[in-house]
Amino acid sequence: MIELTLIGIGTGNPEHMTLQAIRALNRVDLVLIPKKGPRKGDLAGLRRAICEEMLTDPAVEIAEFDLPVRDAKNPSYKDGVDDWHDAIADVWTGTILSHLGRRGKVALLVWGDPSLYDSTLRIAERVQNQIEMTVQVIPGITSMQALTATHAIPVNEIGAPFTVTTGRNLRDHGWPEGVDTLIIMLDGECSFQAIDPQGVHIWWSAYAGMANEIALSGPLSEAADTIIETRAKAREEHGWIMDIYLLRRDTKAET
Amino acid sequence: MIELTLIGIGTGNPEHMTLQAIRALNRVDLVLIPKKGPRKGDLAGLRRAICEEMLTDPAVEIAEFDLPVRDAKNPSYKDGVDDWHDAIADVWTGTILSHLGRRGKVALLVWGDPSLYDSTLRIAERVQNQIEMTVQVIPGITSMQALTATHAIPVNEIGAPFTVTTGRNLRDHGWPEGVDTLIIMLDGECSFQAIDPQGVHIWWSAYAGMANEIALSGPLSEAADTIIETRAKAREEHGWIMDIYLLRRDTKAET
Repeated sequence: MIELTLIGIGTGNPEHMTLQAIRALNRVDLVLIPKKGPRKGDLAGLRRAICEEMLTDPAVEIAEFDLPVRDAKNPSYKDGVDDWHDAIADVWTGTILSHLGRRGKVALLVWGDPSLYDSTLRIAERVQNQIEMTVQVIPGITSMQALTATHAIPVNEIGAPFTVTTGRNLRDHGWPEGVDTLIIMLDGECSFQAIDPQGVHIWWSAYAGMANEIALSGPLSEAADTIIETRAKAREEHGWIMDIYLLRRDTKAET
Repeated sequence: MIELTLIGIGTGNPEHMTLQAIRALNRVDLVLIPKKGPRKGDLAGLRRAICEEMLTDPAVEIAEFDLPVRDAKNPSYKDGVDDWHDAIADVWTGTILSHLGRRGKVALLVWGDPSLYDSTLRIAERVQNQIEMTVQVIPGITSMQALTATHAIPVNEIGAPFTVTTGRNLRDHGWPEGVDTLIIMLDGECSFQAIDPQGVHIWWSAYAGMANEIALSGPLSEAADTIIETRAKAREEHGWIMDIYLLRRDTKAET
């Protein structure tokens, strides 16, 4: 039996690692590290650094593997992702079998938390179709929390709901019903431009949690242009960008 | 100038502490610990244990303080909470002034993450009206992540939104528009009973992340009764309970 542990490592600050994550890392036989992530700058380097600094058990083996590339030409986005996850699952399976056979403990370091807009759990399910394997998850700090920590703000108003969604959803469907607070993730296009900025405040962060984090906030009507410019410049400088933001609109009336 | 650091400590597993949290704890002059939390079992004990285990700098002082009690008789819930937060802010202010005067570094250990359904940031704001003080936040593992880690599930469907809300909101307003996944927090009344269970799956956890965690899941129509019974029994046994759950309904059609 293979025992897979998906370890949330936080958002780029090695100090986001929890004691639980460090212990889990040192309990395995094998750590799988993709040579290059799906995002430029996804920092196989960070994963390697975490292993170098935090792996105290010299018996733990590290296996780097090439991550397959998603076929962006597939006319169906969903099919493209499906095929891609299949391909990744095959690579995981092959790497595990060649290093451990069908018995042993494997860890995978997952950016942020394995539960939040991450495909690792879905890929692990596919591996389970090929190998007898259990899956355990160690939670990690998410970019959502890195964002609110940087700005020192609560995500929710007292007793009020909030919705976590994507830039695409905000563009396609507008501000959702029934909530005054949104967290927008996976937004490559500054989709806050798609909504009426009246009465909306934005808290924005790029590279949230990392040493080069950039944080901006203000009324959306005033901050939007600065964010768009800052984002474009940072992306050019670093060659990649990952950003996240919270939008909150004035509630009409307190009850 | 006082520098206050709110440190997220996770949900009861001392190993939820991040390296950043441990470092922040050892950088202050004073740690404030409430003798008794707002919830029974809120574990001033856990905070003390974390200090004992993780404070390596003997110069750091620990100040325990009595947390004021909220006046549950106030006819306005909002006013009651307002007054209560004022009273807590006064106690923080007094404790800080008597130990440090107007200069020094203070830490407060916050259950979960200071951003999520927590009042610490709002109380800190009131303290800032009385003392010149900066506020910094160190993120911590939330009960939401402890829940999804235990069940080894993603919180979101691929590219889909989810809403985090309270038991009261679910009872009062039903299932929100536009989302198929809900995280329900602060629910003392198994409010999942208020919705049509048809096509809904539940993943439930009590004491999420702690040694005595109880996790149950299944179709809501089948799991509801077991959860209600298990919850009542656990609450009686432990004298308190804190639970959280994820509800997901079948999406009508994939697009």
